[in-house]
Amino acid sequence: MKKVLLQLDTDQHPSPFDAIVAEDAGVDVLLSHGSVTPEAVRGLVQGAFFTRAPDDLSSMAVWVGGSDVATGEKLLDQVQAAYFGPFRVSTMLDSNGCNTTAATTIALIAKDRDLRGRRAVILGVGPVGLRSATLLAQEGCEVLATTIPADVLGTDSYRRPRGLAVAERLGIDAREVADRAEMEAALEGGNIVLAAGPAGVQVLGREVWTANPTVELLADYNATEPLGIEGVDAGDDFVEREGKLVLGALAVGGQKMKVHKACVRRLFERNDLVLNADGVYAVAKEIV
Amino acid sequence: MKKVLLQLDTDQHPSPFDAIVAEDAGVDVLLSHGSVTPEAVRGLVQGAFFTRAPDDLSSMAVWVGGSDVATGEKLLDQVQAAYFGPFRVSTMLDSNGCNTTAATTIALIAKDRDLRGRRAVILGVGPVGLRSATLLAQEGCEVLATTIPADVLGTDSYRRPRGLAVAERLGIDAREVADRAEMEAALEGGNIVLAAGPAGVQVLGREVWTANPTVELLADYNATEPLGIEGVDAGDDFVEREGKLVLGALAVGGQKMKVHKACVRRLFERNDLVLNADGVYAVAKEIV
Amino acid sequence: MKKVLLQLDTDQHPSPFDAIVAEDAGVDVLLSHGSVTPEAVRGLVQGAFFTRAPDDLSSMAVWVGGSDVATGEKLLDQVQAAYFGPFRVSTMLDSNGCNTTAATTIALIAKDRDLRGRRAVILGVGPVGLRSATLLAQEGCEVLATTIPADVLGTDSYRRPRGLAVAERLGIDAREVADRAEMEAALEGGNIVLAAGPAGVQVLGREVWTANPTVELLADYNATEPLGIEGVDAGDDFVEREGKLVLGALAVGGQKMKVHKACVRRLFERNDLVLNADGVYAVAKEIV
Repeated sequence: MKKVLLQLDTDQHPSPFDAIVAEDAGVDVLLSHGSVTPEAVRGLVQGAFFTRAPDDLSSMAVWVGGSDVATGEKLLDQVQAAYFGPFRVSTMLDSNGCNTTAATTIALIAKDRDLRGRRAVILGVGPVGLRSATLLAQEGCEVLATTIPADVLGTDSYRRPRGLAVAERLGIDAREVADRAEMEAALEGGNIVLAAGPAGVQVLGREVWTANPTVELLADYNATEPLGIEGVDAGDDFVEREGKLVLGALAVGGQKMKVHKACVRRLFERNDLVLNADGVYAVAKEIV
Repeated sequence: MKKVLLQLDTDQHPSPFDAIVAEDAGVDVLLSHGSVTPEAVRGLVQGAFFTRAPDDLSSMAVWVGGSDVATGEKLLDQVQAAYFGPFRVSTMLDSNGCNTTAATTIALIAKDRDLRGRRAVILGVGPVGLRSATLLAQEGCEVLATTIPADVLGTDSYRRPRGLAVAERLGIDAREVADRAEMEAALEGGNIVLAAGPAGVQVLGREVWTANPTVELLADYNATEPLGIEGVDAGDDFVEREGKLVLGALAVGGQKMKVHKACVRRLFERNDLVLNADGVYAVAKEIV
Repeated sequence: MKKVLLQLDTDQHPSPFDAIVAEDAGVDVLLSHGSVTPEAVRGLVQGAFFTRAPDDLSSMAVWVGGSDVATGEKLLDQVQAAYFGPFRVSTMLDSNGCNTTAATTIALIAKDRDLRGRRAVILGVGPVGLRSATLLAQEGCEVLATTIPADVLGTDSYRRPRGLAVAERLGIDAREVADRAEMEAALEGGNIVLAAGPAGVQVLGREVWTANPTVELLADYNATEPLGIEGVDAGDDFVEREGKLVLGALAVGGQKMKVHKACVRRLFERNDLVLNADGVYAVAKEIV
């Protein structure tokens, strides 16, 4: 029976990246839909699974993607709301690559390292930052996430990030900082630092992290120049710089791709898997 | 030579149901287009068949779908208007599943039963209702179709259904009824009753059909609660209830799928087949 | 490794013609996008090639199509602007079939004929006309292109064609003519005449070309009645009429298809090929 993946993407153009990785992972029939709204999900998903007997539903899965994570999460909710009786299909959310990126990076950091009791500071409360915070907390870290203040973003029109409310819901200690100085002060006593700000925004100057005596490991999620951490190379694969281990965004790419492909394959092993942050992390821990 | 199906769908998102059944039926290349208007059809269809020599056009077919049957029929007209000289490809219309649903249901009812002279009453003059009326008439029934009145629909803004004009064109005896009482009166003397109202609208109360002495068989096209006929189960597969045979919407599903797949395969046996109500019914009669 | 073609089409519906030829040419994964704007290109292209290691990028290519050649050329520019470092993929532009049509026709005309010093007059300064002009000049012709005047177009709202500026940039001798008489006068001394006006517009009456003593060969790009040259049949394959060789639009079709398919295959032989007018002509010269 052909393996069918229903790609539901919130962007106008369904992601070629997600599409190609799905094809590379062995999907036989890829149905790509762009501009998908939460209202459209039920009809699309039920239309798909009505083509299969309940016993054959592991031959079908749903992929939720697109650049907007918040809307992606609504789509994921609607996919699950479309289930009824024995009709359900495995589903994964990876809007903006948030789950594969965070899970792969944290799995690489946690590999062969005991993170219990380590203090992790995450700069940025977007989807990748908060997912990283949750996973690091699961690994035993004390976690603090901070917002990226207006002077770092270089903007006058600062708005309170939506991520603060999400963090509260997830039980993550998140702090809204007023300016660069307050953000940098949050690094005090930190052992692990993650730069999870917007692409192309430098959030951490070289003199700050090199002068911090407790920081042992830094990872940067930003692959677009200027990088998030000054003095780091996007290709740094746990390179030692200034006495600290450094992980760049591009160095994660190969492993992230393996995790992504493995997740797609998992979707077709059963019909009731939901891969969001935790599920993807479990796969990443096996892969990296 | 690869089998190419051009899926022209009037909805924004081309139907995953139609897409997956096509793939399951052996289509090699599925080109799915959503939001297709009648104006766009000629260019799409001619673009497709210019890739093939006239002798190879049985390797290509057009599928017209989407939730709007009236627009689907305009698309079907335009597909046929795009033919010229030896350039034509087989085409099927199944907007909203109207043809496969009506054809499969009537084929099941007509199987091993002599319908000549039986009186059939169809509640609803939408595409499925009218197609059912036509097919039952072909089987020798005396057919009456009624509108669904405002008090049954539970609406204040009743509009004369477009189906009445279609029925007149098709030579179907269709009656606009003023209210529930008038609709129920139309059942008098009926042997076969089909509930073909909107999804989720109960058109017939239990006390009406159970008290009717002439009714022998009831079928309900509505699979969404509340079902169209009170006291019927969507899964009823010619179950006897209150002394009458009952056919529910979901019981038809498996056979409908077989008919749908068989129709797709037929499209690739020649290049001049047009499967609308009659064509699909011929296939259904062979399958069920 | 699967061969992936990213089809970027400026029209709402990505061309079924381009899609089917791609599949026939051996593409394994076709990702078709419609309504593509220049702004969307970078994300789509980079998303695609991030799924491959640099050494594997010959397994991926980009196709730019749609009816609007000018926007297609902007898309092609943006595809190339999306390259960075070793990340680049082969790309072809064939909006409105302009390159395959012009290249195949001129290759057929140039085959076994020495065009050096011949005078070619091209009626029409659209994309196909100007590409033809460039290719004929490369073959050694003296080339003159003329606009199609308002009285020939049968319109009151004439606008100076954009092609005149393009011609100047390309170094093509292009002349804006005031009316039919001036356009016909431009044929004087011409040996080769190409009708490259809009579909369904007759640009040259029979009495004009039959009376011209120097014209030896006429080709018509218009396959829609009325044809571009009166007295020509769309299927004329270097047929002799009134002592002149005549090539109709449909006669080119089979060879054009071969060129198109060969071009798609070439895209997957390397990762840095850009097939526009010259590149497609080189392929056409090998094929026809």
